[in-house]
Formats: sequence, C-alpha cells, structure tokens
Amino acid sequence: MDEKTLEATALELIENKQYTKLKSFLKDQNPYDVASLMEEINDVDLTLVFRILPKDNASEIFSNLPSEIQEKLINSFSENELRKVLDELFLDDTVDLIEEMPANVVSRILKNTDPQTRKRINEVLNYPDDSAGSLMTIEYVFFAKDMTVAEAMKKIRQVGFVKETIYTCYVTEFRKLIGTVELLDLITADEDAKIEDIMDTNVIYVNTHDDQEEVANSIRKYDLMAIPVVDNENRIVGIITVDDIIDVIHEETTEDIQKMAGISPTDESYFNTSVFSHAKSRIPWLLFLMLSATLSGAVINHYESLLVSIPILFSFVPMLTGTGGNCGSQSSTIVIRSLAMDEIEFKDFFKVMFKEFRIALLVSFVLAAVNGVRIWFVYRNDADINSALLGFVIGLSIIATVILAKTVGCVLPMIAKKLHFDPAIMAAPLISTIVDACSVFLYCNIAIKIFDILG
Amino acid sequence: MDEKTLEATALELIENKQYTKLKSFLKDQNPYDVASLMEEINDVDLTLVFRILPKDNASEIFSNLPSEIQEKLINSFSENELRKVLDELFLDDTVDLIEEMPANVVSRILKNTDPQTRKRINEVLNYPDDSAGSLMTIEYVFFAKDMTVAEAMKKIRQVGFVKETIYTCYVTEFRKLIGTVELLDLITADEDAKIEDIMDTNVIYVNTHDDQEEVANSIRKYDLMAIPVVDNENRIVGIITVDDIIDVIHEETTEDIQKMAGISPTDESYFNTSVFSHAKSRIPWLLFLMLSATLSGAVINHYESLLVSIPILFSFVPMLTGTGGNCGSQSSTIVIRSLAMDEIEFKDFFKVMFKEFRIALLVSFVLAAVNGVRIWFVYRNDADINSALLGFVIGLSIIATVILAKTVGCVLPMIAKKLHFDPAIMAAPLISTIVDACSVFLYCNIAIKIFDILG
Repeated sequence: MDEKTLEATALELIENKQYTKLKSFLKDQNPYDVASLMEEINDVDLTLVFRILPKDNASEIFSNLPSEIQEKLINSFSENELRKVLDELFLDDTVDLIEEMPANVVSRILKNTDPQTRKRINEVLNYPDDSAGSLMTIEYVFFAKDMTVAEAMKKIRQVGFVKETIYTCYVTEFRKLIGTVELLDLITADEDAKIEDIMDTNVIYVNTHDDQEEVANSIRKYDLMAIPVVDNENRIVGIITVDDIIDVIHEETTEDIQKMAGISPTDESYFNTSVFSHAKSRIPWLLFLMLSATLSGAVINHYESLLVSIPILFSFVPMLTGTGGNCGSQSSTIVIRSLAMDEIEFKDFFKVMFKEFRIALLVSFVLAAVNGVRIWFVYRNDADINSALLGFVIGLSIIATVILAKTVGCVLPMIAKKLHFDPAIMAAPLISTIVDACSVFLYCNIAIKIFDILG
Repeated sequence: MDEKTLEATALELIENKQYTKLKSFLKDQNPYDVASLMEEINDVDLTLVFRILPKDNASEIFSNLPSEIQEKLINSFSENELRKVLDELFLDDTVDLIEEMPANVVSRILKNTDPQTRKRINEVLNYPDDSAGSLMTIEYVFFAKDMTVAEAMKKIRQVGFVKETIYTCYVTEFRKLIGTVELLDLITADEDAKIEDIMDTNVIYVNTHDDQEEVANSIRKYDLMAIPVVDNENRIVGIITVDDIIDVIHEETTEDIQKMAGISPTDESYFNTSVFSHAKSRIPWLLFLMLSATLSGAVINHYESLLVSIPILFSFVPMLTGTGGNCGSQSSTIVIRSLAMDEIEFKDFFKVMFKEFRIALLVSFVLAAVNGVRIWFVYRNDADINSALLGFVIGLSIIATVILAKTVGCVLPMIAKKLHFDPAIMAAPLISTIVDACSVFLYCNIAIKIFDILG
C-alpha cells in the first residue's frame, strides 16, 4: 500500500470513528508511515489515535514525529502516559526531544525519567553541539574478554531488544574499549570459544569531542554500521549508528548548500519555516553583499570619464563581472566540496593554486578567443569602433579576470578552513562581489593603458 | 595507530625489503587503511605487496582501490591470481570494476568468472545507470516460509560469510518476496518456530528501475540497513546495503553542487582529475553564460544616452545586478534542495511562488530602505545630484529586481523538475544571467520614467 492510500484509509476510519478497525489497521503499518500519517491528523483526534497505537512501537512512532506534534502530545499526556513513552525511547531520541521542547515541557520530561537516565541525559547535553558525544546513544551491547561465545549470545538474547544495535558488540576491560565482535562471528564460532579469541582488536572509534562531520567521514570510509565513541581515557561511553549518520550527512549538506548561497542555515523544512524566518535568514548576507557591491560602483565612478568617452566599454561590464563571478564560484564550489570530503587539505594550498592557475589559463584563452571572434563579427563594419583594439582589451580583461577569479575562489575557502571558519561561507556570493570590484578595476586600467598606447 | 604512522611504517618496511615483517604488520591493519596505503606504493612494489596481503581480505582491499591501481594490478596478475581475486568479490564490486576498466581488461575479467556469475553481471550491466538494479548485489540470504528458526540459523552459519549482510534476511515463495526476518528476531525466537510466524510482512522494497535517489530516500526515511530490490513480478533479484547508499548520497550531492555552480559533474576526486578535464567540465557553461550576458550588454547599449547623461546611474548597476543574482540564487538553491529532499513537489508551484513573493517583499523593503539611507548620506551635499530622487529610483529598482529574482529563482527549478530535467541546472549562474539582463532593463525604465516625471 502506498503512503497516499494509507493516509486516505486511516483518515476515513478516524472520520467515521471506527476506532477498532483503525487500531487493527495501524497495527500492520510501518511505524515511519504511521508517523507521516500523524502529521495529517487534527489536534482533537491526535491523542486519541496515539492511544490506540500498538504498544510495542508507539515510542518508535513518537520519536519520528515532528517536534510540534510531539509537544502537542506531551501536553495532552498524563504523567503516567508520558513515563511509559519515555521509558521506551532510546537515549539519543530523548536528548533530541529535550533539545526541541520549551522549558516547561523539558521539566516534565526530566521529572518522569529515572535518576540514572537523567544523569546520562545531562552528560550528553553537556557535549558541544554537533559533537560525537551529543549524537551518541548509550544502548550498546558490551562483553568482557573472558566471556564465552555461549555467554555472549545469552546476554544478547536478554538485552538485545532494548539496544540500538546488536550486530556489532563491544569488548571492554575496566570500561576501556579493547575490541569489537560482529554478531556473524559470534553465531558461527564455537560455543566455548572465548570472546578475546574471536574479537577484532583493530577498532575504529571516535572521541566524544570529534565533530559530527569526522564521524560521518569515518563511517563512510570504513563502511561501518555503528561506530563506538570513547572519552579521553579511551573508555567507551556510547555508539553512533549509521541511520543517525545519514541524517547528519543530509543536515550538514543542506547547511553547506544554504551557506554557499548566502543563507543562514535553518533546521526546518521549507514550508515549516515562516515567511519572516526565511527573510531573516536571507537578509544579512544580502545587506552585506549589497553594501560591498558599492565598491564596484566606486570603481566605476572613479573611471567615469573613461566610460563616458568610450560608452561602448560600459556594455561589456555585465559580461566581465558575470564571467568572473561564475569562474570564481566554480573554483570555490569545487574546493569547498573537496575540503568537506577530506580530498583537499590546507597543506595542498600551493598545489591547488597552481592547478587552478593552469585551469584558468586554458579556460580564459578559450573565452577570450570566442569573445574576440564575436566582437570582430559584430563591430567589423562600425566606423566609430576599432574592433581589433576593442577585442584585444576585452580579451586581456577576460584573461586577467578569470585568473583572478579562480585564484580568489580557491584561496579563500582554504584560508577559512585554516582559520577554523566554515569554508562554505567563502562561496559564490562573496567571491562574486570581490571579483566584481577587482575585475572592473582591472578592466578600466587595461582599457586606459591600451587606448593610450595604441588608440 | 593513525593513518600517517601506518603509511610511514609500511613504506619503510617496503624500502628495506623486510617483507616478512611487512606481512605480519599488514595482517593487523584495517583493509580500508591498507587500501589507502597501496595508493602510495610505487608500481614496482605494488604487485609484490598485494601478493603478501592476508588471503582473507585481499579481495576486500582490492575492491577499495582506485581504478587506476586496480588496472595496474590486474595487468600484473596471472590468470590464476585474477580468478582468485574475482571469486571473492561481491557482485556489485565486480560490476563496478567492469564499468571502470578498458575493454581488454574487461574481457580478461569475464573470461575468469564462471558462466553463472557472467550471466548475472550482464543482467546488472543492462539496468539503466543510477537505477536500483545497477546498484544492487545478489549476495543476500533468503528463507522459505516453512523453514524453522533452527534451519534458518543453520543456513546463515553455512552461507553467511559470502553474503553482504545477514542481519536482515528475506523470505520468498516462488521467488516472490513475502517478508523479512531480522537476525535479532531469529536468535531470540524458539528454535522450532516457523519463519512465517516471526517474519515481518510489511516489507519496504524498491523496483530495479527506481532511481538511486529514491532508494536513498527510502533507506533514510525508514532507517534501513539494507533494502530489497524486486522486478516487475515482485520477485526479489537483489539487495542494496546502506554503505553503498552513503556513497550514492555523496555522489549525488557532489553532482548537484557541481551542477549548481555551472560545472559538468565528474566522478573523480579533485587531484585525480587533469587540468584539461577540469577546464573541459567548466568551459561549456561559462561560454553559454558569457554569451548570454551580452544580452545585458545590449540592454545597456540601448539605454546608452540615459547612462551618459546621468553617469552616476551606472555606478549602481553592479549593486543591482549583484543583489538580483544573490536573491535569485538563494531562492533557487532552497527550492532545488527541497525538491531533492522531497519536501517540495510540482503541485506546490503556486504555494512556493506566493511564499517567495512575500519573502521578496520583506527582503526588498529592508534592502531599499538601507540603500535609501546610504544614498541620502553619501550624496546629501552634492549639488549636481537630487539625492531624494536617486534614492527613490534605486529603491524602486531594488524592489522590482528582488521580486523578479525570487520569482525566477523558484519557478525555473520547479519547471525543470516537471519537464524531467535536473533542477540543479537552474541554479545561481543561469538565474544570475537572466536576472542581470532583466534588472538592468527594469532599472533603466524606472530611471527614465521617474526622471521624466519628477526630474
């Protein structure tokens, strides 16, 4: 059944108050689809529908709801109901919930969790935003190295259902992480074998303070299903599973893409963000860039007499600044993405510059040649204009602009990275604005020199 | 041990020809790290090092090497060695290999695979690029519904090591997919229970012809470790695992980001792409945009007399076109990303337009007001310039430009999606070029009208 049919069927049952039918219908559905469905239900029926959800995945459905619906539900819950839902949530989902809720809801949540969980929640909340620690969950399975395979399997059977993953288990000694065991190795090993004999001691792990981007890169590079998180004493404190990392990758990419377009990143989806918030996230960069663009205006003002005496020169400004902006954003985009993917590091600074320089030479000669032909063709019969000279001026200006744009475009993101800024802010909008002013300046100077000497 | 130390140690051992030491050293390393290390070894030692790799992960290391090193190795392999490596590869990795190798290497590969695998390779190669079929692997575990849990576990123990994942197994009846079983449920179930009693019949799957982006969205939405791929008769033909999907997400995102910056997408990393290939992937859009920008030039030419008579007007052109370009790329970026994330569909066309229109109103009033203040401040004592009138012209032009830019920016990607083009091409570069010409035209007309009426 596709999502649309599912929604229609469920909404009809709600409409007709056929709750027994609805209950057995929802029991067969995927929790993620039920969560999508819940977004379509009006506030009056919401709590009612939540109460008839199958007990064993009500919490899973709850953790997949958007925060405004979670808030509505919590506000309608009794303390007892709230406690039941919270009991079933994984720690990382509880932490996410707390981060989204207003203060009064948070205090109700904390009141309804047991002291030990509360302590752990506080620990996780204390890690920096976007760090491995803030992302991890503590529901993992661990063994001692001298356990037998049979004992380990028994432990998995007992605790497996309340753990995020059992497919990779962790071996600890005095809480320090000393190895991992894949479930596949467990079920194929001899029952009496010791864990230390089948464990893999070559463990890939991250530190609680590592940035989520590093975590994502490790999981991607080593094709992991989960990665353990250790503290500074190498003690395991949690794990991060691949499904959470996929969300991180999406979030980080969306953030980068927004920054690269000069938008302050927002977490919410397009329609969930108000017109006012959209405007607020777009205005700062626009204002800054608009005021910076007056620099190009000042350059033009400065060379006003040149432009007034040879007005045809005016008409090439948009083409030159446009080409400069496009060249610069190509370079900055490629460098920003390669930095994010760990393909380029700061130590490659001169290597990248030299590569971009050679690319700029190739690109600019092609663009200058095409423009030369175009200018000759358009102005060849115009008695007022020396088309060869004009073509030469424009060609030289294109070459200078492209080289400048590609250099600025590749250098600024690498410098930003070195200074621990996000390279993504050194993207198209800023680069274009800088290149605009410089290219107009270069253009006017080249024109003056050449018309002086040859004109 | 971090990657750098690992590399240094290994390279030193190779240098000193201490191959026995190297062999035992490499045995303890992660296959992915060894693959990175292999990239640093010179051609002479490469085959030698490969031959002393531990037998049980030589193929895994091989599948993680860049294609040029794989090619060098295959060319140095005997037929026997090649067969051994191919025997251990998963089908999806063999297909990837075939897609990268030149024809003579491909025929050697096909000669050294058994007829049945060859048939399956051909099937996978026949699926469209970027489809679920071209991405899947056939190494999954399946059960009949009347098998007992004990029988199923026995099967996993026998075949598990040559399967991509055993953590989700598939239940089939006449090859049709009828359910899934999680390994966790298997190991906690009663040994005599029937598979059909513990299987989950609510199966999320994709079709062989579905696009890889849809596959990624399903895996992300339902937090899956693997997704089954079925043909048109609902028969299971393969699975796609989450680690391959993470690579797809990265590839698709990099492609989108490159397209959005006017670059033809390339698969290879920055340094693995030659200067010539870089130039080739950047020139087409630059040329197209450069020639399109002459349109703005033509508009300026047309209004030359206005600009020559009031030269100050010209100095605002970069600011106006810049602001238009930035506004347009903000809207197009947000809409392109939301389309890719399935947050916006074509049916939302007018909803998005109306939202962008209101955002444009808010944004443009702020920008116009700031500019008005700036113009009044800068030109208030300039006897030649009517600063109030100038501020009014610029303000009106900003409002018109922003509304135009945001409309063009949101409309074009949605239309592209509807026409089955990639929305990502309707990004900053193209939008800026269109908005440039339109905003210069609007600006000149507004200036003429206002100076005529009020000047």
